[in-house]
Amino acid sequence: MTATTPERSPHIALWWEDLALGEVRALGSVTPTAEEMVAFASQFDPQPFHLDPDAARDSVFGGLCASGWHTCALAMRLMVTNFLSQTSSLGSPGLESLKWLKPVFPGDTLRLQHSIVEKRPMAKRPDVGLVRAVWEMFNQHDQKVLHMEGYGMFRRRTPGTEPVSGM
Amino acid sequence: MTATTPERSPHIALWWEDLALGEVRALGSVTPTAEEMVAFASQFDPQPFHLDPDAARDSVFGGLCASGWHTCALAMRLMVTNFLSQTSSLGSPGLESLKWLKPVFPGDTLRLQHSIVEKRPMAKRPDVGLVRAVWEMFNQHDQKVLHMEGYGMFRRRTPGTEPVSGM
Repeated sequence: MTATTPERSPHIALWWEDLALGEVRALGSVTPTAEEMVAFASQFDPQPFHLDPDAARDSVFGGLCASGWHTCALAMRLMVTNFLSQTSSLGSPGLESLKWLKPVFPGDTLRLQHSIVEKRPMAKRPDVGLVRAVWEMFNQHDQKVLHMEGYGMFRRRTPGTEPVSGM
Repeated sequence: MTATTPERSPHIALWWEDLALGEVRALGSVTPTAEEMVAFASQFDPQPFHLDPDAARDSVFGGLCASGWHTCALAMRLMVTNFLSQTSSLGSPGLESLKWLKPVFPGDTLRLQHSIVEKRPMAKRPDVGLVRAVWEMFNQHDQKVLHMEGYGMFRRRTPGTEPVSGM
């Protein structure tokens, strides 16, 4: 794990200590095309409404739309490029909520918002802290299309000495 | 939504009525390569431990591993090919749990298991039923690497007339 120790990580601008409860970050936007949606779905989610405009028109969605997993992957790309790559992130154990609230159509512009809703030391590792965040993606009509919530692990600049319980 | 009405859907073998509480299905397996992991991560999750074997060796994961979103997408592909494509599936509102339990390394063989843990009519739509399922992916060492749980919506062969409350 030496790759993320201070002396070898000049790119780390934000450690666990620097992430503040209540902070809300705008993490950029992305505008997926129909071709990108079909390419993703062909590989990972080949359902008719993600592949074929004619079949999609007759579906519950009313038109060709992105695989929900494609939307998640696009959110992750914005997270990495505009946030995680500047931090001491060590990954995530998972999500406690993932909601696909609206279909994403070709040409929709999706912006990602990241809000820190909880922050605490990690019980088992004094060199790591946890941050619970809400990720929300909104389209150009300000409709929320994606809601995710879960913990991320971040290395601490200074390992803690406080006793903590739980995860 | 005519695409999934009975008369126009000869491919539908399984309607909501046919999905039984407690059923466990083996939905095939997949063996992602390092090249596929790097290709996915380059597009959607460009963190060093998903892109660069040298950086990955020094990371918390100990070696190049798949983006968690890649693992989810691979599970979805098995779901669609080996299950959803034969059903009256209408999509999913999301997941209530998503856990990345172990890293997935190049050449790991991942098998997907799908278990139906709840089944009920949908309050607002008598033509649709809900199924709550657990998706579990195990590697060749029978270690669980991915756990997901959430609802899917399936069209009913025969719309219901029972009064239901809730979602």
